[in-house]
Amino acid sequence: MELLKQRILAEGCALNADVLLVDSFLNHQVDVVLMQAIGQAFAAVFAGRGATRVVTVESSGIAPAMATAFHLGLPLVVCKKQASRILAQDVWQAQVRSFTRGIQYELTLKRAFMPAGERVLLIDDFLASGEAALGVLNVLRQAQAELIGVGIVIEKAFQNGRNRLAEQGCTVHALARIAKMGPGEIVFAE
Amino acid sequence: MELLKQRILAEGCALNADVLLVDSFLNHQVDVVLMQAIGQAFAAVFAGRGATRVVTVESSGIAPAMATAFHLGLPLVVCKKQASRILAQDVWQAQVRSFTRGIQYELTLKRAFMPAGERVLLIDDFLASGEAALGVLNVLRQAQAELIGVGIVIEKAFQNGRNRLAEQGCTVHALARIAKMGPGEIVFAE
Repeated sequence: MELLKQRILAEGCALNADVLLVDSFLNHQVDVVLMQAIGQAFAAVFAGRGATRVVTVESSGIAPAMATAFHLGLPLVVCKKQASRILAQDVWQAQVRSFTRGIQYELTLKRAFMPAGERVLLIDDFLASGEAALGVLNVLRQAQAELIGVGIVIEKAFQNGRNRLAEQGCTVHALARIAKMGPGEIVFAE
Repeated sequence: MELLKQRILAEGCALNADVLLVDSFLNHQVDVVLMQAIGQAFAAVFAGRGATRVVTVESSGIAPAMATAFHLGLPLVVCKKQASRILAQDVWQAQVRSFTRGIQYELTLKRAFMPAGERVLLIDDFLASGEAALGVLNVLRQAQAELIGVGIVIEKAFQNGRNRLAEQGCTVHALARIAKMGPGEIVFAE
């Protein structure tokens, strides 16, 4: 997605080889017009695949996922990050480690919002090691729902998230794929 | 907003006199069509007041705030909840206690995203004691920005948030105002 790549080049800041700051348009300040364009782009890619629900992970995934759900005419479900395991029968949970942020959380999804048989499109802002996406896959499998596609705004293509998801049979579509980055340098994969 | 009130009556669940579950359409499962209607409603109320930015607090405020920003054609800024004080010169912070959830956090806003003189519309999902909104007012004052209005999806009108904001000169517009609630009972204020 050319518009997104230009924006990443203009405003993105690679703090090092792993951390990319895009908080001026994606996750702190949010360009809602760009989000609508992102939603349209994902809707064009995933239209016709029979998705019945869009899922994301709070909180940076909400803006692009909401725009995508709107353009596909689907309900949105936001997986919560709980600090610890909930002793309740009405949720599905999966433990997720965030390598970038050095934290661990329980990805939490209320069972009532994911009946068996749902066909789910996951939309998230970043894909790196794939931990969060694999956590979503884990809770969806517990729910007997199917992950039919993964839409990512920015993929760190130098990490192994895409391969780990492919091993589980999941297709990833990223709007911008970064092959390499560092201070003053951002190189796209294609 | 009639559509919202009907939805609260149909799906809202008052666990007790203080806690209202609306996670089937507002903050876990998100009805994006309803969010667009909420955004339009806020845009109609606050149009012509010279707002230059919409601000919200992660993560449940993001969906209604994004829809509002889109309908007003304004940028959105999402205040972050940090667990602790950041020792950095590039952010404004204010301590906020959440009575409902029994937690405390540092509301955090990057200075670059709130230049002095901005005219800010705050959109949030709930207003109860007003702690989060007063936290936003606090960081905006640090930034020398002006809070020109507060748009709330659901106000717990039996709590003192509105009065505390009024004492600070802030006008609140809520789309649904709950006068009283409890198991099996939700009574609107008007």
